[in-house]
Amino acid sequence: MLLGSIEAGGTKFVCAVGNDDYQVKYKVQFPTTTPEETLTKVVDYFKQFEIDALGVATFGPIEIRKTAPKYGYITSTPKPGWQDVDFIGFLKKEIKVPMSWTTDVNGSAYGEFTMATLFNEKINSLVYYTIGTGVGAGAVINGQLVGGIGHPEMGHVLLKRHPDDLEFKGICPFHGDCLEGLVAGPTFEVRTGKKGAEVPLTDQTWDILAYYIAQAALQTTLTLRPNKIVFGGGVTNQVLLEKVRIEFAKLLNDYVQVPPLDKYLTMPSVPNNGSANVGNFALAAKLLVD
Amino acid sequence: MLLGSIEAGGTKFVCAVGNDDYQVKYKVQFPTTTPEETLTKVVDYFKQFEIDALGVATFGPIEIRKTAPKYGYITSTPKPGWQDVDFIGFLKKEIKVPMSWTTDVNGSAYGEFTMATLFNEKINSLVYYTIGTGVGAGAVINGQLVGGIGHPEMGHVLLKRHPDDLEFKGICPFHGDCLEGLVAGPTFEVRTGKKGAEVPLTDQTWDILAYYIAQAALQTTLTLRPNKIVFGGGVTNQVLLEKVRIEFAKLLNDYVQVPPLDKYLTMPSVPNNGSANVGNFALAAKLLVD
Repeated sequence: MLLGSIEAGGTKFVCAVGNDDYQVKYKVQFPTTTPEETLTKVVDYFKQFEIDALGVATFGPIEIRKTAPKYGYITSTPKPGWQDVDFIGFLKKEIKVPMSWTTDVNGSAYGEFTMATLFNEKINSLVYYTIGTGVGAGAVINGQLVGGIGHPEMGHVLLKRHPDDLEFKGICPFHGDCLEGLVAGPTFEVRTGKKGAEVPLTDQTWDILAYYIAQAALQTTLTLRPNKIVFGGGVTNQVLLEKVRIEFAKLLNDYVQVPPLDKYLTMPSVPNNGSANVGNFALAAKLLVD
Repeated sequence: MLLGSIEAGGTKFVCAVGNDDYQVKYKVQFPTTTPEETLTKVVDYFKQFEIDALGVATFGPIEIRKTAPKYGYITSTPKPGWQDVDFIGFLKKEIKVPMSWTTDVNGSAYGEFTMATLFNEKINSLVYYTIGTGVGAGAVINGQLVGGIGHPEMGHVLLKRHPDDLEFKGICPFHGDCLEGLVAGPTFEVRTGKKGAEVPLTDQTWDILAYYIAQAALQTTLTLRPNKIVFGGGVTNQVLLEKVRIEFAKLLNDYVQVPPLDKYLTMPSVPNNGSANVGNFALAAKLLVD
């Protein structure tokens, strides 16, 4: 069996072909240009293979309700040219296999969930946050992706402000100081005048970020009680994550039991941002048995 | 078919017997005293009937992981005498029918979800908040109760503080100004010196509560994307709920689509706090077909 995966990002597309062990056999990437040009490259790439099913995980927002007329569309994205694009419709004209369709972070969440079960962790739920240029999260609960009337947008929840960060207004154009507005990569430049990569890990800015990210973990802990919360994205690193664990323990104050924090709040188990890829393969494979 | 329901509260127990249309046939209530005395009354009550299955929704925290040695226990509750009580074990010795076991708010969530589907609302997810002496919430996602490593404790999430309420420290003994610490019934007395029922609905305290409850609704909207969020409990009323809708619309700022707010943020559809009862019947009936 051959499975296809598309990770559609705002700057690049990664297409891969793998087997039912979710091993990548072939892989290609190209920049995200116009929908027509980019999706044509996607179609041309997959036409070289006899894939049985295809998983798509994409930037959004997207329409995921199967009964909606615009199911399979990227909807109100800020990315120029990509509003109201019938992504799945374009592919279906040329590639006649079952396709799964979800957000990039849901794909990653499902990939990390799949890996955990392959490594025999007894889990049925997982949350995946990406903290990078933007902030988003996906969730698997009772083995299924979460999302009733649409996909989660956990990057935009509100938080208790850090006492040493009250002057900062946040950078989210929609909500100001929501989670994304407070911890996304570009906040470093507004707070410190430097890019995140140039801000020493001893700078208090990292502690402030950790306080907010710990609150995000607290919200999902108390709302979903997942087995595991995984943090990916360009802003995440081990030093930050260790700060997050310390803040999380303080905030939770032993109110509910969670697994040991080094197992509960983790970096992705799939290296090189490959979580969504595994998730796509697994979601595609599921279409063939469901 | 006859179904049993136990709503176990900190001050009273409500036991009911109903049919598979979830109609209550018989009902009794008595005060919550010692576990031995109270659970003996429960057993004696149900022994009068030939029930086929029994649903239990209780105050907590409780152990809900079926593989845990203490499955069926009330665990670390502050209620004197009720810590570490083998609730289900006590019942099983005397009543030999399948039993469901969940929290009071999960029971209510499942009841409201069941009623919505009976009235042909096309929903697969719902969140139920109780705002009373304490604050809690239950959730149904993809038709199933949420809770991986335990049940949700959404009453204890942190929130962005209202600018006119920064001096108030909150009353939660665990977290100070978490949701429960900011909006539970007893906060009225600390803020105003009066009981909630005596504080006019024109008092700004209600607006402050609405701001925080709207944030709770925002968190669950962005995390779960449910079809509906229901608010019960002694503090909730229509005037408060309308204020919550207005604050919610401001905070969400049209970032994601939700149903019309008078349908999306609602009071319970089951009158007289009967939601958990319906939920218990439905969860008990499910045991007979699963």
